[in-house]
Amino acid sequence: MEQILTDILEKIKPTDSKKKELEKTREKLIKKAKDTILKTNTKAEAKIFGSTARNTWLSGEKDIDLFLIFPENTPREELEKKGLKIGKKISEGEGREQYAEHPYVNTKIDGFDIDIVPCYEIDDPTQIKSAVDRTPHHQDYINSWLTPETSDQVLLLKKFMKGIGTYGSELKINGFSGYLCELLTIHYGSFEKVIKSASDWGEKTLINRTQEHEDEDLKKMFQDHPLIFVDPVDPSRNVAAAVSKKNYAKFIRATEQFLKKPKKEFFTPNEPSFSIEKLEELIEDRKTKLFMTNFEIPFDLVPDIIYPQLRKTRKTLTRKLEENNFKILRSDIWSNEDIGVILLELKVSKLPKIRKHEGPPLDVDAGPFIDKYNNSSEKYAGPYLNEDGRLVVEISRNKTEAKQVIHKALKTGEGFGKHIKKSINQEGYKLAEDQEIVKEAESLGIEKFLGKYLTKCLPWQR
Amino acid sequence: MEQILTDILEKIKPTDSKKKELEKTREKLIKKAKDTILKTNTKAEAKIFGSTARNTWLSGEKDIDLFLIFPENTPREELEKKGLKIGKKISEGEGREQYAEHPYVNTKIDGFDIDIVPCYEIDDPTQIKSAVDRTPHHQDYINSWLTPETSDQVLLLKKFMKGIGTYGSELKINGFSGYLCELLTIHYGSFEKVIKSASDWGEKTLINRTQEHEDEDLKKMFQDHPLIFVDPVDPSRNVAAAVSKKNYAKFIRATEQFLKKPKKEFFTPNEPSFSIEKLEELIEDRKTKLFMTNFEIPFDLVPDIIYPQLRKTRKTLTRKLEENNFKILRSDIWSNEDIGVILLELKVSKLPKIRKHEGPPLDVDAGPFIDKYNNSSEKYAGPYLNEDGRLVVEISRNKTEAKQVIHKALKTGEGFGKHIKKSINQEGYKLAEDQEIVKEAESLGIEKFLGKYLTKCLPWQR
Repeated sequence: MEQILTDILEKIKPTDSKKKELEKTREKLIKKAKDTILKTNTKAEAKIFGSTARNTWLSGEKDIDLFLIFPENTPREELEKKGLKIGKKISEGEGREQYAEHPYVNTKIDGFDIDIVPCYEIDDPTQIKSAVDRTPHHQDYINSWLTPETSDQVLLLKKFMKGIGTYGSELKINGFSGYLCELLTIHYGSFEKVIKSASDWGEKTLINRTQEHEDEDLKKMFQDHPLIFVDPVDPSRNVAAAVSKKNYAKFIRATEQFLKKPKKEFFTPNEPSFSIEKLEELIEDRKTKLFMTNFEIPFDLVPDIIYPQLRKTRKTLTRKLEENNFKILRSDIWSNEDIGVILLELKVSKLPKIRKHEGPPLDVDAGPFIDKYNNSSEKYAGPYLNEDGRLVVEISRNKTEAKQVIHKALKTGEGFGKHIKKSINQEGYKLAEDQEIVKEAESLGIEKFLGKYLTKCLPWQR
Repeated sequence: MEQILTDILEKIKPTDSKKKELEKTREKLIKKAKDTILKTNTKAEAKIFGSTARNTWLSGEKDIDLFLIFPENTPREELEKKGLKIGKKISEGEGREQYAEHPYVNTKIDGFDIDIVPCYEIDDPTQIKSAVDRTPHHQDYINSWLTPETSDQVLLLKKFMKGIGTYGSELKINGFSGYLCELLTIHYGSFEKVIKSASDWGEKTLINRTQEHEDEDLKKMFQDHPLIFVDPVDPSRNVAAAVSKKNYAKFIRATEQFLKKPKKEFFTPNEPSFSIEKLEELIEDRKTKLFMTNFEIPFDLVPDIIYPQLRKTRKTLTRKLEENNFKILRSDIWSNEDIGVILLELKVSKLPKIRKHEGPPLDVDAGPFIDKYNNSSEKYAGPYLNEDGRLVVEISRNKTEAKQVIHKALKTGEGFGKHIKKSINQEGYKLAEDQEIVKEAESLGIEKFLGKYLTKCLPWQR
């Protein structure tokens, strides 16, 4: 394991020249910010936060968070207005307005991706006005605990998380944030110790360095969270709130497997490629029924908006299929922020023309039910009594093929993500099935997504 | 309604000549019994019980129950031995030994079907030694309440029950016994009053003329019984214990419908017939998957043994199909006591080659699971983590067709009725599917069973 970690660290630790490059940009940025603050006669401070400010950034990462820290008594409106104004000036007209809890500016300078975020200066982090106000306190906490040695350990953990696909608290991933990786490393002491400890985690794990709340209370507060890491700067907050059950389990299984057989694929998994022939063969082999729908997403939305909407849309589709007695084997979503793709794989996609329909309970007169179906041309058999004493008629099923349900759902958009519904309504959708999907995937350039779906496995085992 | 009831009564009430015929046989039987008792120097009395003894027998019914009533202190062994001996003498070597709680003799005399049953004379019916000891008390109760007029009303109710298929407490039917029909008529006063009252019955009905137990206690004692009619001669017994939910509901629905539109079909439903072409067409229309298995029942078993075994066998077959993810639409059984038939109709009878298989929970090491399936040739995809954080592999399904499950179940006989398992083991079985079933039904002479299955409805609506 030693050797692997040394090799990996060498690759992921920024070189001196990279560090200098970053330093230059940081200084430039701070200077620009301070000048602008002065020129606009604003009461605010400018500071850099995030991994690039605390030596826990991976080589190749190019994110800088520039915070504009306003005094606590600044009216919210003024903070938002001035925050945007200064952000735009710094980015010299290149910046895009973006929205989180309040608006901020995203821009590119010297090849770095820079978020310029206004926040309040709040002494007590439990009294913050907006989530970003916590960031300075997080930075203070990490800096007070992290040594140059442990920051290398953070790099290893972050790279491991990236490799197995659990890194990032954004809604696309629902995984472990950088701050959480830093805290885990601080808490256990090293990458290897994190790995060893996590391999013993059970269905629910609680890490509490503050002792402000009782463990029992914390478990109740965060009862749906598999992992609870109490925020040292705000003990009523779970730093691991974003971590899904799936990613929690994936991390545990990865640590288990890594301890048994350490290999570099945990950090840098092999990326497979799939020929058209291979994809066709994989679909042929499964003998399931596969559908793929794709549609445009024309509204310039951030991933934190797109992915929840895609998931909601997928869930609505699978729910409607199940309600019609079709059975899902698996499904998946994909997006490049311009188009959305939903894959649906069914184990039952055709049903007979007949379905059962139950009559009223015994304390309700069955006359209307019996008359209605006796006079119905769509009746196959019944009414009769079933073993539970319920009247049943056998009538014709509306949708005998899953495809009909999918088309109808896509046409109405009912229960879909708001923007997806709007887009499909305006721009339409495509629906491919079985082998047609391969051609469609080729034209969308998502052969790898399709191939990975069809050969889904643990990333380090590819 | 008046006119219909008059017409029906005319048909079902035994004529004077029929009554004389019965009277002659009864006298002959009693004389024979008394002679035999005298000759064999037995301490016992002979008496006729059942509907033929209390003017509640339907024209055409030919059942006589001759009871041999022994003193309470007779040893059980002696009662059984002497009971059989006298029974056989009366039947002059024609009788067959049969078994209920104790053995009795069944024979035919003058075209009547006669059961010769030994029982104890017990003064207090709550202290009986065997279920048949209750019969004399039932007869006393009914005779003390029934008038010639109300016995006509019983005839109507019994015929109505027969017509809709809910008459008989035997295990083939699970319906309303003759005694229960008598009690219902006594309780409500007339056929019409029974019908009107029953049309208002809800999910559970309790009729208690004894007031010995509290209603709440009775509902607990008989919590699975939809209808509770407390036995006036034994208040801890439910006369309606045999009535299934289905037959209870069927009776209620029939009364509801009869009140709205009285017609003779409730008493004498039309009996449909089905041509081969019609059966083929019906099967073709349903577009389901239909299987029919049939086998011999070579053991001379009574219906009370055969039907529960057939139901158990059917239940095992449907359970095994459902366990393998095939979906049942409906099923039915048929028997003439020499052969057994089970119909199974599926809405899902084919499944893809792939099935999911879940790994261990998080507190169990997943190493063995992962290694096993990574080295398995039957793996299609996985292991991967699902949304619940469980490892999943996609492996090949053993049985992709329902037919395979049915054949395997029939071959092992596991979970089948004991005699059915034995018979299939010795004599084999046939399994027909879809249109093949029509020919098989023709050769078994059960076209009507198949046709009624395919056009199942309320009997009075045929």
